[in-house]
Amino acid sequence: MNFIEIIKKKRDGSELSKSEITFSIENFTSGQIPDYQFSAFLMAVFLKGLNDKETSYLTDAMLRSGNVIDLSLVKGMKIDKHSTGGVGDKTSLIIAPIAAAVGVNVPMISGRGLGHTGGTLDKLESIPGFRADLSLSEYKTVLKKCGAVLIGQTKGIAPADKHIYALRDVTATVESIPLITASIMSKKIAEGIDGLVLDVKTGNGAFMKNPKDAIKLANSLIKTAKSFNKKVITFITDMNQPLGNNIGNWLEVIECIEVLQNKKRGDLLNLSLALAGAMIYLGKKAHTLKEGIKIAEETISNGGAFNKFLEIVKLQGGDIKYILSPDKYPGSKFSEKIYSTENGFVSQIDTYELGMASLELGAGRKSLQDKIDPKAGIIFNLKVGDKVKKGNEIATLFSDSSSKINIAKEMVINSIKLSSKKTRQLKLIKRILD
Amino acid sequence: MNFIEIIKKKRDGSELSKSEITFSIENFTSGQIPDYQFSAFLMAVFLKGLNDKETSYLTDAMLRSGNVIDLSLVKGMKIDKHSTGGVGDKTSLIIAPIAAAVGVNVPMISGRGLGHTGGTLDKLESIPGFRADLSLSEYKTVLKKCGAVLIGQTKGIAPADKHIYALRDVTATVESIPLITASIMSKKIAEGIDGLVLDVKTGNGAFMKNPKDAIKLANSLIKTAKSFNKKVITFITDMNQPLGNNIGNWLEVIECIEVLQNKKRGDLLNLSLALAGAMIYLGKKAHTLKEGIKIAEETISNGGAFNKFLEIVKLQGGDIKYILSPDKYPGSKFSEKIYSTENGFVSQIDTYELGMASLELGAGRKSLQDKIDPKAGIIFNLKVGDKVKKGNEIATLFSDSSSKINIAKEMVINSIKLSSKKTRQLKLIKRILD
Repeated sequence: MNFIEIIKKKRDGSELSKSEITFSIENFTSGQIPDYQFSAFLMAVFLKGLNDKETSYLTDAMLRSGNVIDLSLVKGMKIDKHSTGGVGDKTSLIIAPIAAAVGVNVPMISGRGLGHTGGTLDKLESIPGFRADLSLSEYKTVLKKCGAVLIGQTKGIAPADKHIYALRDVTATVESIPLITASIMSKKIAEGIDGLVLDVKTGNGAFMKNPKDAIKLANSLIKTAKSFNKKVITFITDMNQPLGNNIGNWLEVIECIEVLQNKKRGDLLNLSLALAGAMIYLGKKAHTLKEGIKIAEETISNGGAFNKFLEIVKLQGGDIKYILSPDKYPGSKFSEKIYSTENGFVSQIDTYELGMASLELGAGRKSLQDKIDPKAGIIFNLKVGDKVKKGNEIATLFSDSSSKINIAKEMVINSIKLSSKKTRQLKLIKRILD
Repeated sequence: MNFIEIIKKKRDGSELSKSEITFSIENFTSGQIPDYQFSAFLMAVFLKGLNDKETSYLTDAMLRSGNVIDLSLVKGMKIDKHSTGGVGDKTSLIIAPIAAAVGVNVPMISGRGLGHTGGTLDKLESIPGFRADLSLSEYKTVLKKCGAVLIGQTKGIAPADKHIYALRDVTATVESIPLITASIMSKKIAEGIDGLVLDVKTGNGAFMKNPKDAIKLANSLIKTAKSFNKKVITFITDMNQPLGNNIGNWLEVIECIEVLQNKKRGDLLNLSLALAGAMIYLGKKAHTLKEGIKIAEETISNGGAFNKFLEIVKLQGGDIKYILSPDKYPGSKFSEKIYSTENGFVSQIDTYELGMASLELGAGRKSLQDKIDPKAGIIFNLKVGDKVKKGNEIATLFSDSSSKINIAKEMVINSIKLSSKKTRQLKLIKRILD
């Protein structure tokens, strides 16, 4: 087989065979195919697409580039969730304990913050002592003991994805639905899961700005998951405002604690219940999604979910003192409240800008080398549709640098649009696909 | 400026600015842009195209990547010819002396054989002693002395083209009209020419199999040449059979000598007169193309062209003994005549296959390291439309290897299709564009 012929075939819009795709990924991973040839292939794929069959073959070849974790010794269903990422999106920390408390295994491998979005890994690591870098055997041990484990991507899982992603990032081939699908699904399937709940976000704070693209991606993910006989439920959810109120790593952990302790209502709770309900349903602990959601609610109100969270944190080395008393956590050197200077109704929130403001305060990385400040971030009080009066508290910013607060303050203020007319609330869950 | 943004822009089908294209070529040539990024860009260009403006900017940036030869000290017009390549295409050796004999300067930089096609450089080097690797100052000296010079591409001329071409070759991005245009025109304009005659070949022995593509390429070349204020005339010519009869380096030199000595009629003479006539016209030594062709004819019949050829060969170190008496040239160890086994009319000739048969005999390179046998090749007697009788001599093969002759014999026989019905001759010059 000749890789130039394979590039040519895709360039001319033809369908690639399973053996051609496997050949390409195997030889790219082994270094036989150089980057400069593979990047031309990626651009051809970007512009000519891959059909469902090809996407499934690509996913298969990528997941086989590394280890597929064998979780057969862990009894029961193993269900994970994947979100395409947003601002204030912290549901993993809430739904993993809920599902595990009900008896669904949650083997969760998460990523770090990317651009304006936060990463589950960075949030977890804001808990003093928490270790996300477990070995494969520790990973299995924790999962067996408490039914959930949350770690970062290991070297052995789908190494082809890491290499391909790095190349896509510098060759303008990121926003391709089949390539995104294969990247997500190869890693998830390699985890050893039986089913997957997908949260595909759309809006001005998501990677998929418009709902049409989000639905396309969702359908591609669903078809690929099914081709591997994995159960899947997909939520298309709104990301035109931050999820919940807190943005920034430790601030988000605090908000999760509030939800798990049944102290907080609103969009974050509602989405968490839906996602956890779907995990419980896929994990065969409920007969319907609706029943799954009801069980999730009970698991919060009876304290099971919060206790499970404590158990996970403890098993992964985290100091539960801070979970039990978040006020013991060190505070930021500077904080500043922002107040509204006018009356009106919130008509629009530039969620991307809020994510960037949080990053500016120290909650994210501008380059790979940057260190995250776990305390930094924003508590943002508004939702689209809210009525605001002059002098109302809009947000509080936290940072160890007062100059960063000044920059971020401007960004937060600019991110809000008020209207003199009444505005509508946003619908959180736009669609459920399965 | 950011190259990823430039790739993205082209990927999404937008027009690139002059500064974006210049930035890309300058930074690729200097090594700032790595191959793996540039190949994604090439694929985006391949699939999304470049408009005339962008093609002109690309040509400009590529020619500026090296030296632009200053021929201002050489008096009079400097006109070159470029052919897109074919089998038996040897007109350069005929038209350069014709035009020079009339007083048009011909600064000609040629290439080597590529795939099934021969290269002017390889043909010239079959003349014992002939040096195609002149220095820039020798190049100017020969041109000033005799009005023509024929050399190979030097390092200093459009180095970006060499690097880009190598990358296109391994990334399935060769057959792109704007990229072909910029590759041809950047080198030609860097030669210091005032005008250019283009021979765009189409047919089963050409790179452009169908006339539509050939016309597209021709129009792209013409527009680009004009954007640099270069005069240009383009011939779309047939390559559904070899040009002339001889295929193989020294065999082709012999055929050129026959034409220059006014001993041979047919398609090779006719096309050479048309191309030389166009050079004479562009070089302001005739008022019309027709007059140019008439002057070209006279230059052959009065011996001026042949004498000029001898002068060029001598000045470039070639031994004119072999030009004056080609029979003194060493013969191949083996030769074999092929005879027709049936009656009929020639309906089709697989010209690509004939080119490959000649290569098999030793006249071309299968890999870059291969040495060419200058004596090897084919004298092919047939033209489409010819009547053939059983026992007629079809071709003679020459090689130093009898096993190669056996392989090539089969290929030559298979390349010919006879029909029981009368067939039409092919039209040599399909179109003239300017």
